[in-house]
Amino acid sequence: MSNTNKRTSLLLNWYANPYHTPIFVAKQLGFYKEQAINLSIIQPTDPSDVTELVGQGSIDLGLKAMVHCYAARSRKYPVKSIGTLMDEPPTGLIFSKKSSITSFNDIIGKKLGYVGEFGKIMIDDLAKRAGIATDQYETVRVGMNVANAISKGIIDAGIGIGCFQKVELEFNHDEIEMLRIDELAGLGCCCFCSVMFIAREQMLEKESLLLKKFMKATQRGLSFTLENPHKAYEHVCQEYPKLDTPLYKKIFVSCLPFFSRTLLNTERDWEKVGLYAERLQIVPKNYDPKQCYTNKFIPEIPYAACKPIIRQPLKSHA
Amino acid sequence: MSNTNKRTSLLLNWYANPYHTPIFVAKQLGFYKEQAINLSIIQPTDPSDVTELVGQGSIDLGLKAMVHCYAARSRKYPVKSIGTLMDEPPTGLIFSKKSSITSFNDIIGKKLGYVGEFGKIMIDDLAKRAGIATDQYETVRVGMNVANAISKGIIDAGIGIGCFQKVELEFNHDEIEMLRIDELAGLGCCCFCSVMFIAREQMLEKESLLLKKFMKATQRGLSFTLENPHKAYEHVCQEYPKLDTPLYKKIFVSCLPFFSRTLLNTERDWEKVGLYAERLQIVPKNYDPKQCYTNKFIPEIPYAACKPIIRQPLKSHA
Repeated sequence: MSNTNKRTSLLLNWYANPYHTPIFVAKQLGFYKEQAINLSIIQPTDPSDVTELVGQGSIDLGLKAMVHCYAARSRKYPVKSIGTLMDEPPTGLIFSKKSSITSFNDIIGKKLGYVGEFGKIMIDDLAKRAGIATDQYETVRVGMNVANAISKGIIDAGIGIGCFQKVELEFNHDEIEMLRIDELAGLGCCCFCSVMFIAREQMLEKESLLLKKFMKATQRGLSFTLENPHKAYEHVCQEYPKLDTPLYKKIFVSCLPFFSRTLLNTERDWEKVGLYAERLQIVPKNYDPKQCYTNKFIPEIPYAACKPIIRQPLKSHA
Repeated sequence: MSNTNKRTSLLLNWYANPYHTPIFVAKQLGFYKEQAINLSIIQPTDPSDVTELVGQGSIDLGLKAMVHCYAARSRKYPVKSIGTLMDEPPTGLIFSKKSSITSFNDIIGKKLGYVGEFGKIMIDDLAKRAGIATDQYETVRVGMNVANAISKGIIDAGIGIGCFQKVELEFNHDEIEMLRIDELAGLGCCCFCSVMFIAREQMLEKESLLLKKFMKATQRGLSFTLENPHKAYEHVCQEYPKLDTPLYKKIFVSCLPFFSRTLLNTERDWEKVGLYAERLQIVPKNYDPKQCYTNKFIPEIPYAACKPIIRQPLKSHA
């Protein structure tokens, strides 16, 4: 059996959606195939399964946020980020303008939806900072159904992404508001919600060439998406026709500014989220962020005419 | 007469178009007005007039690429960049697939369009690198009419931006190709084509508060655009109805990935373009890039929860 027949598995962080476009484009245009990677793109029904399935070695690769990497490692699942798909998508508590919420203090007496374990920890941390006791509001685990649960009145507000769930709710002609978590928690930016490619350490050692090839093909998919967004989305719809709807097209356009342009892990973001994870008591004090990520599988680019410049993952925040 | 009646003038780098959205949004939503800035947004008929008009102090602010700043300074127009609007939009030689061009060597015997003085210098540099003599091809100055000149067959190929002129030509159902200048010139990225806000040094000293207010309002327009692209474009169309066409909407979406997210000048990009300008003999050897830009007018953001992090304009390239 040739190498191309062995499947490499990638478990998305969410059901297949427009911000996975670079991956679907790379698959549809044969970029993974050219690298002899037979990629199976799979979706969770509960996003909380991803780090565990990757961490225990059942699945080769996953998508997940930084805080999940920290949490996984502190639970002895040795996962590492090998790159960034989405950079700092604005994230917050989303609710209809018709609700009586205007500031965070209005959560008192309300039902708040969160995706998984860490969403609840974040809400409780925000409440604590605002001097609100945990029995003054109710939390509801809603998994991937945030927008639906708000629409149906199951929750009054829920944690979601500005360029996804907010757009989803606005599509039904509701006026939607968002209280940004980075502002409420004093984080300075939404890097805690960036979407990372993760793999476990054993894979990093044993499958170094495969990971380089994977990132090379993904980088091509990403560049194609950034430089040809309209064509890219047509390819996605061919590969996964469920995404061929006006709503998902609108979400795709809304996500365009938040795709990573380099795939690089950003040292500063890892440091910030490390401190946040420490505050949330997800990791012990002074945990070294460098344990959580590596950029060594990301393809280099030529600088023929310029003096050699060391690639640095540092960047500034909006 | 109150301060708000005095006009502050901003001369765009090109006719008003979708990549100026953050500026129009900031104007339409009253962000400049809130800062007591009465902003006049004006357009050139020849983009080559911008640095001179700003440099001689006729106009307060302008938009222009880094190479133009270098050139202006070496001609004793003391302009400086105070921020970035567009980050590395892919730029190249654009032509119809129906033409007989498939690689750069095919320019022999062809008519090549360029915008202004430095476009010609860039083409001649590329030709020299490819071993093609200047009499083996023809160059035509086309200003802002690149797409039109290609459509009409006035030129065989012209320098344009992937997310603008290429989209414009593709809209007429032509298959369009682009040979990227960063690849041909070995630059590693298209930062030489990033769009910067420029002002002259006298203004930087005398109007420091005004510039801070201008950048603050612009940052708000930029954030609004990135986080609400659909609504942002509706505001642009209200402010400037000429942009309310299907083609311009498509160009807007194509430009979304290339808006700067921070407005920051990037040290590394200035260094690279400095070396490029040196190679093009636009500036003398070892010209200090730091003369050309400052980030001191860009608003700071809070990092309440995180340890203080020095804002660094370094970033990596796709």
